[in-house]
Amino acid sequence: MSRIVMKFGGTSMAGIERIRSVAGRVKREVEAGNEVLVVVSAMAGETDRLVQLCRESAVTHDNQEYDVVVASGEQVTAGLLAMTLQTIGLNARSFMGWQLLRATGLHGNARVEAVESATLDEALKAGTVAVIPGFQGVSEDGRVATLGRGGSDTSAVAIAAGLKADRCDIYTDVDGVYTTDPRIVPQARKLTQITFAEMLELAGVGAKVLQTRSVGLAMREHLPLRVLSAFEDVPGTEIVAELGADMERNAIAGIAADRGEARITLTAIADRPGMVAAVISPLAAAGIAVDMIVHAATEGAGGSDLHFTVGRASLSQAMAVLEKAQVEIGFDRLLTNDHVGKVSIVGVGIRSNPALAALMFETLAERKINLLAVTASEIKVSALVAEDQLELAVRLLHSAFGLDQGTDA
Amino acid sequence: MSRIVMKFGGTSMAGIERIRSVAGRVKREVEAGNEVLVVVSAMAGETDRLVQLCRESAVTHDNQEYDVVVASGEQVTAGLLAMTLQTIGLNARSFMGWQLLRATGLHGNARVEAVESATLDEALKAGTVAVIPGFQGVSEDGRVATLGRGGSDTSAVAIAAGLKADRCDIYTDVDGVYTTDPRIVPQARKLTQITFAEMLELAGVGAKVLQTRSVGLAMREHLPLRVLSAFEDVPGTEIVAELGADMERNAIAGIAADRGEARITLTAIADRPGMVAAVISPLAAAGIAVDMIVHAATEGAGGSDLHFTVGRASLSQAMAVLEKAQVEIGFDRLLTNDHVGKVSIVGVGIRSNPALAALMFETLAERKINLLAVTASEIKVSALVAEDQLELAVRLLHSAFGLDQGTDA
Repeated sequence: MSRIVMKFGGTSMAGIERIRSVAGRVKREVEAGNEVLVVVSAMAGETDRLVQLCRESAVTHDNQEYDVVVASGEQVTAGLLAMTLQTIGLNARSFMGWQLLRATGLHGNARVEAVESATLDEALKAGTVAVIPGFQGVSEDGRVATLGRGGSDTSAVAIAAGLKADRCDIYTDVDGVYTTDPRIVPQARKLTQITFAEMLELAGVGAKVLQTRSVGLAMREHLPLRVLSAFEDVPGTEIVAELGADMERNAIAGIAADRGEARITLTAIADRPGMVAAVISPLAAAGIAVDMIVHAATEGAGGSDLHFTVGRASLSQAMAVLEKAQVEIGFDRLLTNDHVGKVSIVGVGIRSNPALAALMFETLAERKINLLAVTASEIKVSALVAEDQLELAVRLLHSAFGLDQGTDA
Repeated sequence: MSRIVMKFGGTSMAGIERIRSVAGRVKREVEAGNEVLVVVSAMAGETDRLVQLCRESAVTHDNQEYDVVVASGEQVTAGLLAMTLQTIGLNARSFMGWQLLRATGLHGNARVEAVESATLDEALKAGTVAVIPGFQGVSEDGRVATLGRGGSDTSAVAIAAGLKADRCDIYTDVDGVYTTDPRIVPQARKLTQITFAEMLELAGVGAKVLQTRSVGLAMREHLPLRVLSAFEDVPGTEIVAELGADMERNAIAGIAADRGEARITLTAIADRPGMVAAVISPLAAAGIAVDMIVHAATEGAGGSDLHFTVGRASLSQAMAVLEKAQVEIGFDRLLTNDHVGKVSIVGVGIRSNPALAALMFETLAERKINLLAVTASEIKVSALVAEDQLELAVRLLHSAFGLDQGTDA
């Protein structure tokens, strides 16, 4: 007998018919002799509707009240699934976030602190399926707290860890993790296994299958995850600490494309020690993370140019911060370019094989794709390119690394 | 400085614009120096939508899960109103039912047991407007419990009583309590004052302005109520223990029409001691209340007929109960008539003036309206008539008792 957490996303909870189908899947796991906890999202579209109501009510709304409003969507689906499970002969009951999930940190973006596992443990041992609304808990001040968008994945992993579950299955509207976005590369291939570290890099750079926080938590808790289709009976992708010894998998897990960044250039910047810190510190103080940094000599005149990227959503805020600090930093002009994209190769093989990075640069150079910036980590190499070349870059690399369906590595 | 509870119904919470208008009304009371608690309903239509989802999920749904689902509607409006109040410069926060309203009894139809008044008291004294979702609390087993449809009125009165409020104002889509249903009698007049007892009789027989339970609770707690329009600035109706000494009001407060009953006739019933009890006991055991009872000799043959009314919704259940007990009770045939209606005069003057009942019967007799049954209490006289004569009866009595607008009593 295993103890498992099953998490269902908004698309699988969108309407009574789909909730019935979810109930059928839960029943199969129960009949296989498992103890089952189910974590549910709100019906697809419902959270957006509730967020919109908050926005219309108040431009800068109180996050505590926001949490009260948006948490209601999962409360509804948890109750509906519990009663549906009962109609097909299972013992089931819902537990609210405020009854068992203590959260800490900012309202609207809280973190899971602890799970009241005794209550759930008792229910599971009595043969009850526990249904829990995702994305929410109770804050230190005893109020409803939500975990930030996509937080249902994190709820599921936190509950699985707290209840010492054997695994956590994330049912979603895709059937697994792919080598890249299939909308860009139709030959993208579903991965049988991927490591937590690779998944974090893929999620961080744009392959949004699971909330990043949930993957990090599962990694720390040594909790195996599976990503599965809520609609089809096909094998999904396992997310594990180490690839299985018998796994014949490419050194590269996948290619990620990310349109979420914008480039800032500060021209004719005074070339002195601590110059990069002088730029990054005021941005960090404003909560803006800087990603790819390139420092290049300005052609012609003295001084040099500093290029770096920030999230597109933070671009105007970053510009304001930098313009205010122009004198202290000492630069001539601030230029921006939000028509850029980042392409990355991700794989545990990178750390042991420098030829992989070389293959990436050669592949892009062959097709005259200009690299605006480059960064590399243990398991990822990224290149910033013009946005209109991003998809071409992804396709070229996907093919060069032998990831296309029907090809060998 | 007064402490007041303001309760807003679903129509006044239906959408952000209306919630803003509610916030404006709340602000006026705060600026007048009052401590204010606000109890809100779900947006109009939302509770019906949630109930429908439960029905689709499970024909006989678990009431505990039903409560989890349907309670979410008021949670949303409470959060939205709190944030809207903040945008217009008030201190405001929402409190959930599970944070402060202990309920007892059956899930789906619970009763308010106690209000955690210390928490609210503290908030009010700190100048905070407390916004509370109506219709819900927390059950003895620590789960969400709802109070039954219309329960927001009861929440408001219970909270007002628990917090020793000076009064409870019920804002709704009508602007007060009328002498009768204005859809039947366009000349119906708004009452300035009505007693709790009269209001209970009017509500009980069909003038559905306030949930009956809330009126009974306010009466026991000596808490003055007001019914007011949420949309227009016009005086409403005060509901009080005793009419003001200076009130020049008719002895009759109003005329009620009720289509909610059906008549059952048991023919040739054995005429013996305990016969009525033999009929009523099995019905009571099934939770079916019997209202008007008439026992008349059967024309011709021996024995007699017993006529009585039950709620239309319980008619088929009542028939099943009686058919099962036919031998014990001893009757010939069971006849039913659901084309009946009950017209009632209601007023504190009835107890001291028998001429009022006489005027009612004379008025109906003059127009040859046949009385199928009659009952009388201290402040109410009711007559059962054919359904197609009900509206005529209401109009005749409204006029005969001087209640038409522009007439004198």
